[in-house]
Amino acid sequence: MGFQIISGCPATTGEDYQLNTISVLRHASSVYPEVEIASRREDGTIFRYCYREAYERVCRLANGLQRLGIKPGDRVGVMDWNTYRHFELYMAISGIGAVMLQMNPRLAVDDIAYIVGHSETRFIFVAESLLPVIEAIAKKVSTVEGYGVITDKEPEAVATTLSPLWSYEELLSAEEPRYPWQMIDERSAYSACYTSGTTGKPKGVYYSHRSVYLHTTAVAVTFGINASDVLLQMVPMFHAQGWGFWLAAPMTGAKLVFSGRYTLDTTHTLVDLIVSEKASVTAGAPALFMPMLQYIRTLPQKPDFSRLRIASGATEPPLAMMREFFELCRAEFIHAYGATETSPVATVNLLKPSLQGWPKERQWENQKKQGLPVAGVEIRIIGADGNEAPHDGQTVGELLIRGPWIASSYHNDSRTAECFRDGFWISGDAATIDPHGYVKITDRVKDMIKSGGEWISSIDLENAIMAHPEVVEASVVGIAHPKWQERPLALVVVRKEAGGKVTKEDILQFIAPKFAKWQLPDDVLFVDSIPKTSVGKFSKKTMRERYAGYFNSPGK
Amino acid sequence: MGFQIISGCPATTGEDYQLNTISVLRHASSVYPEVEIASRREDGTIFRYCYREAYERVCRLANGLQRLGIKPGDRVGVMDWNTYRHFELYMAISGIGAVMLQMNPRLAVDDIAYIVGHSETRFIFVAESLLPVIEAIAKKVSTVEGYGVITDKEPEAVATTLSPLWSYEELLSAEEPRYPWQMIDERSAYSACYTSGTTGKPKGVYYSHRSVYLHTTAVAVTFGINASDVLLQMVPMFHAQGWGFWLAAPMTGAKLVFSGRYTLDTTHTLVDLIVSEKASVTAGAPALFMPMLQYIRTLPQKPDFSRLRIASGATEPPLAMMREFFELCRAEFIHAYGATETSPVATVNLLKPSLQGWPKERQWENQKKQGLPVAGVEIRIIGADGNEAPHDGQTVGELLIRGPWIASSYHNDSRTAECFRDGFWISGDAATIDPHGYVKITDRVKDMIKSGGEWISSIDLENAIMAHPEVVEASVVGIAHPKWQERPLALVVVRKEAGGKVTKEDILQFIAPKFAKWQLPDDVLFVDSIPKTSVGKFSKKTMRERYAGYFNSPGK
Repeated sequence: MGFQIISGCPATTGEDYQLNTISVLRHASSVYPEVEIASRREDGTIFRYCYREAYERVCRLANGLQRLGIKPGDRVGVMDWNTYRHFELYMAISGIGAVMLQMNPRLAVDDIAYIVGHSETRFIFVAESLLPVIEAIAKKVSTVEGYGVITDKEPEAVATTLSPLWSYEELLSAEEPRYPWQMIDERSAYSACYTSGTTGKPKGVYYSHRSVYLHTTAVAVTFGINASDVLLQMVPMFHAQGWGFWLAAPMTGAKLVFSGRYTLDTTHTLVDLIVSEKASVTAGAPALFMPMLQYIRTLPQKPDFSRLRIASGATEPPLAMMREFFELCRAEFIHAYGATETSPVATVNLLKPSLQGWPKERQWENQKKQGLPVAGVEIRIIGADGNEAPHDGQTVGELLIRGPWIASSYHNDSRTAECFRDGFWISGDAATIDPHGYVKITDRVKDMIKSGGEWISSIDLENAIMAHPEVVEASVVGIAHPKWQERPLALVVVRKEAGGKVTKEDILQFIAPKFAKWQLPDDVLFVDSIPKTSVGKFSKKTMRERYAGYFNSPGK
Repeated sequence: MGFQIISGCPATTGEDYQLNTISVLRHASSVYPEVEIASRREDGTIFRYCYREAYERVCRLANGLQRLGIKPGDRVGVMDWNTYRHFELYMAISGIGAVMLQMNPRLAVDDIAYIVGHSETRFIFVAESLLPVIEAIAKKVSTVEGYGVITDKEPEAVATTLSPLWSYEELLSAEEPRYPWQMIDERSAYSACYTSGTTGKPKGVYYSHRSVYLHTTAVAVTFGINASDVLLQMVPMFHAQGWGFWLAAPMTGAKLVFSGRYTLDTTHTLVDLIVSEKASVTAGAPALFMPMLQYIRTLPQKPDFSRLRIASGATEPPLAMMREFFELCRAEFIHAYGATETSPVATVNLLKPSLQGWPKERQWENQKKQGLPVAGVEIRIIGADGNEAPHDGQTVGELLIRGPWIASSYHNDSRTAECFRDGFWISGDAATIDPHGYVKITDRVKDMIKSGGEWISSIDLENAIMAHPEVVEASVVGIAHPKWQERPLALVVVRKEAGGKVTKEDILQFIAPKFAKWQLPDDVLFVDSIPKTSVGKFSKKTMRERYAGYFNSPGK
């Protein structure tokens, strides 16, 4: 675990009482039985019931799972959209001590098969509209003993090659709406989510009951969620447990809304849901908000979202989008940072009262940062010299994160050794922390340029160069240097009309005011295009290889 | 522990990362370094500093405690008013793994000496103005090795017989403002509080780091505390850790205000502090709010407390006082219930959104209840038949409470056996739970009348009889009955002028509409006075003894 634990005098409070996820729903069923859960069906209609009814169905499902032979510790996969049944599966599978494997239908078939095999999943529940995805892996997975199809239809009416097959509703209807819940060891896994990293096989993060319970309370405290709220679950529930927002609803008595199925082409259904269900809290990625904004622009009457807080996650918060959203419909964006390994909420950008006197422009500027560490999360930035970097908003360090809901290993994975240190997750992100406590991701560490014991941010250089009116795109990479270890080299594409007219000196002069002299690129190369990866990102790997010996040439 | 724990699949999140109280202040020092702590001195002036400075002084104190030889597990007593130094002691003592004993200066000398001895306290910190209390017990306690006097003065200027003696500020000034905090086992005790029950010796509740951390997050979620708040610590910090409110401030970045010393005669200083520091959250007992209200009545310009939430604890919430407070200055009262054994927040009376359509009068009436169980706390009411009573708002049961911050034993105390069952604390309170989930304390179980397998509330009968215009006071006790086990007997004192004119039939007719026939007293006796205890409460014990054979006489 990387640290010592000191024992003091034994206490007399309920230390053996385990933090269990099912207790959150039991609480809601007992204290907020009447509060509504609304869930958008694929046909656009809304299914509605309340926490008491949800709880009774979760009891039926728990009995059904037990009848299928699912035991504590077993893994059960779920591939579904954001629906009330997905919610029931989360609650019931973890409630009986089993582990819900979060399955992302957008992953490559081989990755899905790897995840099912690596987790030794025994049973898979799948939405009817996602059956083809599971059918494509069925022959590749040897651990799966059966399938449950999530549908409103009679099981006979479902066309599939999967076998043996149960229908979700058939499973529930045979059971009692009561279940004798046991106390589950809070250190046991409640759900598993595999990273979809760009390199190598997915890595398994197994969230414990304890970690999810604590993460949920942190989300509730940080976003101020209470019984007056209406929480719209928009983030897919297979992405780092849907950012854990939905569980804050039964904890606080808030109304819960599930978005159902949507694509980037149908995000108007999300806007309509916010309006019709009076949503006050939601979370998602900018990729969703951009088309939502486009839809809002077309509306003759703009909706009033002045009650709405939107948690948004992205490395570089899209400020223009956030401003336009606010100007059109008064929605407040709250930028947050995290990863599969952090459950995921690690930092949240709320404006501190002490900064509310800042000019509005400076406040917007501040929103570009990843934000303040959430209470309970410990964050360090380790500089190029191996020491903790000062919180001066300037010195860059590698971001390390530790805490009760931060991964401290991967499930059965030798990469644990390189990804964790002293209980900290090594995020791979390079960041600064300013004197007010705000964390700002500046780069990926692997894209940082290590020059003379200091780090130079390639992203900062790129953004500065791209602000030049004649520049179409630019990328900066660190190239080995005999004296300084690495030095920055800039590759720049200029507008056709400007070809040959923009010089290295023009570029360096243009960006000089924003950087120390030693941070400026040693050279600027004008190229026709910048090498890209298959998903359209700059391929820094290709560039580093192509220019590997560049600074070793004489005269450089 | 009274329950089985089932193990599932091991998780990969930070299960070994311990919930420690010092991490809350470290968080505030790092994320909210600039946020103010204000503390009223005995001379009425305000001491001010910020979380960063508080943290540095806590580091100095931790070094000083270590120099005194305090080790993990040791008990260190503190007797102080609500001050910033009391806060520092809480943080530093628990931070090094020792246990802070909460010392109530208003207890009897023998009880204080018992508590110090039972807890084997090694060192006591005491406010200069409370020195006489500690001097009075010094000869009776053998475990104490030294004393720290909490004062602004030079140590030589302090007149006391205590020895050896250190000055608090002297201790700090010699030390470094940094401390190498270790991870403390979260199940270890952070602070101890002894009950001041009316019968028998005080019983020791030792709160763990874990329990306090979880209680603090629950307080923050339930009362919606955030960085915009100003939290006034009014409840004495030796009463069930000051109801745990103050620790929610560094957790959320709220400003923290300590009330300093006050008495029931100087509660106007509390009103003035709310005004001058713009307090938005506080907590206390109605005994404080009554004189505060009297002071507010005298103010020509009523303060605007529309931002203020006041958590108030009392078995019978004083509705008239709450209404007048609201009408005069818009302060919102939130009635809460708990005990030393519950850390203390167990239920909180917030009006659910689904009830906000109720007529205002019904909403006020609802505020008389103890409220909704806080998320994380498990509550049961066990009826006279030994089964869980239905949540119908009618059936009375004994209130049992269980959860991560609820006591599950007493420290080295044989009374543990009778006070806990299956991990639940047996509260001794009789209560109903209504279909909306609200808990209402109806009585102490020992004052309940067990009649034919049902319970009758003596308090309900008393209140109903006392509403009669000619009645001065009334008490109802359960007296042994050959057929029904017990039956209610009412003792009534009427106004002098009404003597002889009010009959048993008058009383029974007056209260009949509110009760089932079998709940009415079998007899009403008119007496000159009702026996009282030394603190002025009805002595039901005396009455039960005096009338023990009453229903055994022929013809009764």
